[in-house]
Amino acid sequence: MLLSKSNLDDRADRLYDVMIVGGGAGGLSAGIYLQRFRLSSLIIDKGKARSFWMQELHNYLGLPPDTPGRVLLQKGKQHYDSLDGDFLNGFVESVIDEGDSFSVRVKVGRTNSIYPVFRAKYLIAASGIIDNLPPLEDMKNVYEYAGYNLHVCMVCDGYEMADKQCGFFAGSEASIEEMVFNLSWFTAYITIFTHGQFEVSEPLKTQLQEYGYRIVETPIEQFLGRNHQMTGVQLVDGTIFPLETGLISMGSTYHNAYLQEFNLDRKGGYLVTDKMGRTSHPRIFAIGDLKVGLNQAIVAAGDGALAATQIWRDLRVPRRWEVLASTT
Amino acid sequence: MLLSKSNLDDRADRLYDVMIVGGGAGGLSAGIYLQRFRLSSLIIDKGKARSFWMQELHNYLGLPPDTPGRVLLQKGKQHYDSLDGDFLNGFVESVIDEGDSFSVRVKVGRTNSIYPVFRAKYLIAASGIIDNLPPLEDMKNVYEYAGYNLHVCMVCDGYEMADKQCGFFAGSEASIEEMVFNLSWFTAYITIFTHGQFEVSEPLKTQLQEYGYRIVETPIEQFLGRNHQMTGVQLVDGTIFPLETGLISMGSTYHNAYLQEFNLDRKGGYLVTDKMGRTSHPRIFAIGDLKVGLNQAIVAAGDGALAATQIWRDLRVPRRWEVLASTT
Repeated sequence: MLLSKSNLDDRADRLYDVMIVGGGAGGLSAGIYLQRFRLSSLIIDKGKARSFWMQELHNYLGLPPDTPGRVLLQKGKQHYDSLDGDFLNGFVESVIDEGDSFSVRVKVGRTNSIYPVFRAKYLIAASGIIDNLPPLEDMKNVYEYAGYNLHVCMVCDGYEMADKQCGFFAGSEASIEEMVFNLSWFTAYITIFTHGQFEVSEPLKTQLQEYGYRIVETPIEQFLGRNHQMTGVQLVDGTIFPLETGLISMGSTYHNAYLQEFNLDRKGGYLVTDKMGRTSHPRIFAIGDLKVGLNQAIVAAGDGALAATQIWRDLRVPRRWEVLASTT
Repeated sequence: MLLSKSNLDDRADRLYDVMIVGGGAGGLSAGIYLQRFRLSSLIIDKGKARSFWMQELHNYLGLPPDTPGRVLLQKGKQHYDSLDGDFLNGFVESVIDEGDSFSVRVKVGRTNSIYPVFRAKYLIAASGIIDNLPPLEDMKNVYEYAGYNLHVCMVCDGYEMADKQCGFFAGSEASIEEMVFNLSWFTAYITIFTHGQFEVSEPLKTQLQEYGYRIVETPIEQFLGRNHQMTGVQLVDGTIFPLETGLISMGSTYHNAYLQEFNLDRKGGYLVTDKMGRTSHPRIFAIGDLKVGLNQAIVAAGDGALAATQIWRDLRVPRRWEVLASTT
C-alpha cells in the first residue's frame, strides 16, 4: 500500500520484517522478493534514484535498450504494490538498534513535515549514491543535458561515446588518472576540463599530452546545445569547445548518513558485504551502489534478490500441518 | 549475427575476445555488456535454458509478473543481435586451452552435424543446470505440468504454493531434509512422494510425522489434471492423491562437461568464483546457475554484467588521439 500522511496511523504498531531504505532498482527488487517470501516490508524512498536520471537504460536484460530509468522504477513499484508491499515517500533521518529490531525515524513531507517512527527486524540499505555535477551558477544548464549525451557512468554509456569528441569533466587529479585512460578505449578524442577546481601535476600533464588528450583549466561558463543534446562548452573567457558527448567524473554523494553510528566495515566509502549483501552488522544488508561492487541497475536488482533470500533464510521457521478446528 | 551452417565460414579465422557457452539470462546479459564494451563475443546456445521452461517469471524487476521465461530470452537475443553479437545454436563438445586463447569444438545440427572449431581469449561458462524430473514411463505427462503449477524452484514459486495442498517429489532423503521444512514456510499441507526410488530413514519419518507431513513411497503412475494444471497424482496401485500444486526436488544436471579437464575449484558441484565471476582459471568465468550462489534469472543477469566488466578491465588498453592522415 502507498502510505502517506493521511493513512500512516494504520501502520503505527506494526513490526515489519524488513525496512528497505531506497526505492531504486535494488530496493524494489528486494521488496518484490520479500513480499513473495511472505515477509512484510516497507520501502522508504526519498525519490530520484540514480537510475531515475537515466534517459535510456541500454544494458538491462529484458528491457528494450531505449527504456528510461524511470520506467523501470514505475514497473517495479507497480509489481511491488501488487504484492501488497508498503511504500512511503520520505527521508530516513535516523536508525536506532533496539536489539531485536530497529527503530527508524522518517521525515515525511517537505513542508509541514511529520516524523513517524517505524520498527523493523532487518534493514536493507539501498539508498544508493548520486553523482556530483559540475557546479555552475545556473545548474539548470547542467540538468538540461545530464543523463542525455552528458553521461555519468562509463560502464553504462562508454559505447554511446564511441569515437566521439568527448569532454571529460574531472573532479580531481585521481579521477583523471583512474578514468581517462580507460575512457580512451571508447574514444581517444578527449578534452579534460578541470573547471579551475584543482591543479594537475606536471607528470600527469606530460602523460596526457603524450596520448594527445587536451586539458582545459579555465572554469566553464555554460554547456551549449539544445533539445537535451549538448554540443559543446563555453568557458568564462568566452572560448568555445565543440563536443559531441561528455562524461562527468566528479565523485558521488553516498546516501548513507543514517548508518553513521553503526561503524560498518567500509572500503573506500563503500560498504563491505558478504556475497548475500550482509554488512558487518548481522541485521543490516547493503545492496546496489552503496556496497563494494559495480554500480549497475541489473546488478542492484540481483543484489536485492540475494539480500531478501538471505533474510528469509534467517527468519523462516517450519510450520506444522494443522488441521483447522472448523474442518475436523 | 545469427550464425548457421551456411554462414559459418565468415567466422572461421576470427579470434573472439569472449566465447559464452549458454544463451540464457546470464549469457545474454554478458553478451550485451561485452558488445557494448566493444569486445567481440560469440554465444553458443544448446537451447532450452532453465528459464525457457518457466511459464511465468514472477520476480524479475522490470518485467510484468506473468512474463514467460522464453519472452525474456527472446528480448535478450534481439538486444544482443542489435549490438552485432554472434549467436550460434550448437553444443560445445570440448575446450582446449592454447595458452592465450581457447579452441572450442562445437557440434552444429542434430542431423548431418558439422563440427566447427572457434577461438576465443576468454570463456564464460553460462550453460546452467536443468532440473531432473520424475522418471515416468510417459514423460509427456510430466512436461504437461512442469513449469506451470508443478514447480522446480522454491525461491521462485513458493509464493504460488502458499497454503495449497502440495506434492513434494523428492529425489533423495537429503532433498527431504533440506527442502521440506523450508517449503512448510509457504504451505504446511505437504505430501512427500519418493516414487519408490529410495528409503526414508525411521528418524526422518518420525520427524515428518510430528509435523503432520505425509509420506507416499509407492511409485507414481501419472500426474492428473488438464490444461497444464496438475490436480493430483495417481500411483501404480491406483490410489489417487488430490493436489493443488507441486515442487520437484530431484537434483539437477550440470551442463559443464566441457570444463571437466580444467579441474576448476568446486563446492558441492557448483563452481567457485570471485565476486566478478572468475573461476580458479584466470580466463574462465562462470555465471548463473553453474556457480555457487542463488539460481535466479535476475541474479544471473547481474552476474553477466560483472563478468563482462571484469573481462573488459583485463583486456582494455589506452588509445592515443590519432589525427587521421586524411584530415591533416
